[in-house]
Amino acid sequence: MTTKRILSGMRPTGKLHLGNLHGALKNWVNLQNENNYECFYFVADWHALTSDYGDTGQILENITDMVIDWLSAGLDPQKSTLFVQSKIKEHAELFLLLSMITPLPWLERNPTYKEMKEELTNRDLSTFGFLGYPVLQAADIIIYKAHGVPVGVDQLPHVELTREIARRFNFLYREIFPIPEPLISDVPKLLGIDGRKMSKSYGNSIFISDTGDELSKKIMSMFTDPQRMRKTDPGRPEICNVFSFHQLYSEEESIKEIDVECRRAGIGCIECKKRLAARITEGLKSVHERQEYYRSHMQEVSDIIEDGNARAEKIAKATLGEVREAVKI
Amino acid sequence: MTTKRILSGMRPTGKLHLGNLHGALKNWVNLQNENNYECFYFVADWHALTSDYGDTGQILENITDMVIDWLSAGLDPQKSTLFVQSKIKEHAELFLLLSMITPLPWLERNPTYKEMKEELTNRDLSTFGFLGYPVLQAADIIIYKAHGVPVGVDQLPHVELTREIARRFNFLYREIFPIPEPLISDVPKLLGIDGRKMSKSYGNSIFISDTGDELSKKIMSMFTDPQRMRKTDPGRPEICNVFSFHQLYSEEESIKEIDVECRRAGIGCIECKKRLAARITEGLKSVHERQEYYRSHMQEVSDIIEDGNARAEKIAKATLGEVREAVKI
Ligand code: SF4
Ligand code: SF4
Repeated sequence: MTTKRILSGMRPTGKLHLGNLHGALKNWVNLQNENNYECFYFVADWHALTSDYGDTGQILENITDMVIDWLSAGLDPQKSTLFVQSKIKEHAELFLLLSMITPLPWLERNPTYKEMKEELTNRDLSTFGFLGYPVLQAADIIIYKAHGVPVGVDQLPHVELTREIARRFNFLYREIFPIPEPLISDVPKLLGIDGRKMSKSYGNSIFISDTGDELSKKIMSMFTDPQRMRKTDPGRPEICNVFSFHQLYSEEESIKEIDVECRRAGIGCIECKKRLAARITEGLKSVHERQEYYRSHMQEVSDIIEDGNARAEKIAKATLGEVREAVKI
Repeated sequence: MTTKRILSGMRPTGKLHLGNLHGALKNWVNLQNENNYECFYFVADWHALTSDYGDTGQILENITDMVIDWLSAGLDPQKSTLFVQSKIKEHAELFLLLSMITPLPWLERNPTYKEMKEELTNRDLSTFGFLGYPVLQAADIIIYKAHGVPVGVDQLPHVELTREIARRFNFLYREIFPIPEPLISDVPKLLGIDGRKMSKSYGNSIFISDTGDELSKKIMSMFTDPQRMRKTDPGRPEICNVFSFHQLYSEEESIKEIDVECRRAGIGCIECKKRLAARITEGLKSVHERQEYYRSHMQEVSDIIEDGNARAEKIAKATLGEVREAVKI
């Protein structure tokens, strides 16, 4: 079995929440622990500029916070290469070269582009770099000759664009790049404490780093079945966000019990949430321990990033050597 | 008087013609020889990809040919820094960063973009990189904190865009970049031997490197006043391309004489062209001597480029240091 290279990145949004943990991160950790994968995970700080170019003050701090959360979630720097995009200048060079061969219509019809442009009208996002986001993303991926890209379903059009750009390069110059496959994993649906999508910008997130009172308070304030006004009303676990969390953090037995008791008003929401807080605290114990460890060993975090950057750079430089030779520039 | 930094570039189209010599190059040499300018001239090989990404085989050879022509025309590597864009990776990094702050409409309304797109419909030029040409150009210029940019009139909109992008960066982050001024010089109107615009792609060029028989043959085949069918017809120097060349290469006295004699059919076109061939041969003597020297000292040419690259890189790296600090990335 040959080793396949996996590549994925996240924008440095700072502290990660449980949506991130059970979405991308757990998947990253699983891939890292399979023997036939060699994993590269990067902080997409240049990408952060596409939407936040006007307010960059937080990026540096966010990078460290995010990497600490990665490590806390179980990414092992011995197994995975963790690095920062903007430190590997070859991404920018490949971005420039790929720009030259990427037809404009490919970018203009990108559904994510259209969508984000409509959503974020207030932010003056109609920049050249924002339109070229998928070109930079293609460079990020193929510069490591990645075979697989773990992504959410919403990212599929971007991976498709990466594949098209890689194919076009191979066709125009030389077969340098593998065509990367998207690796889609099942992601449990976790909402924020107010019942909307969990998102840092909504202020409704339970963070990986939340512990003790902070964690309990958030859980106690979670929206439940809106029709269950009183403890004596029966509830519907299948539409309750608290129950979704139980499904991830509680024992099979206990989940079944809550399912039954909720429906016949045998358990109150307060009790149910208390149990959940205990379960999450228990479930994230090792995550919080690592969190504490790295928070008090910041130099080690820096060293891990430095080391990852060096590993990534070596590969990126080698690829660019081939690319320059193929493009004859 | 403070020294002002001048920056300009040319795409590596290979051997240069007399249009290039009397257009940009003489101007570059003049600027170099003024004491208050510090000149940087670069081979825009990444720009060559915007239109020739599908056929890059000639670029490397063209770079050397072009630099030899620069040196032959009188650029002095002791005074001017001659370098190759793609060797200074910081251009790509700054291109990426400027991409993020450049509004798309600024590029879409760029008249050169609209024009070239219409002209070159056969070449599949509608790429992301082609649209972003002025962003790369802005990076090329401001990375050296240039004060002046010698350009042709047709390039004015690009310099205007560079100025807007520099201003926007300064406004968003920190006052790092001087706002460069376009330096427009009078360019004599020289046509190709067939009376169309002199252009390598038309096959109608007199090259800087043309000497002896080759040069004579081209001059002898030049279009003259189309109404002068016979030697006994009077001619109109003011519409004759041969005369335009005389005005550049012949003595005042001799120009006057031709002007008079042509109008009264006292001189034939063959005689007139013979004189011109002799004058150009004389006028380009030192150019051809340098040409010969560098052609037989190719290592020296490489060393000059290496040295220029090193000088340019040092400045580019320093600027990027400031830029990263300002952008906080
Ligand atoms: S008891 Fe638990 S599962 Fe049922 S509605 Fe309340 S919080 Fe949700
Ligand atoms: S004599 Fe000379 S200037 Fe007059 S038309 Fe002939 S080439 Fe031109």
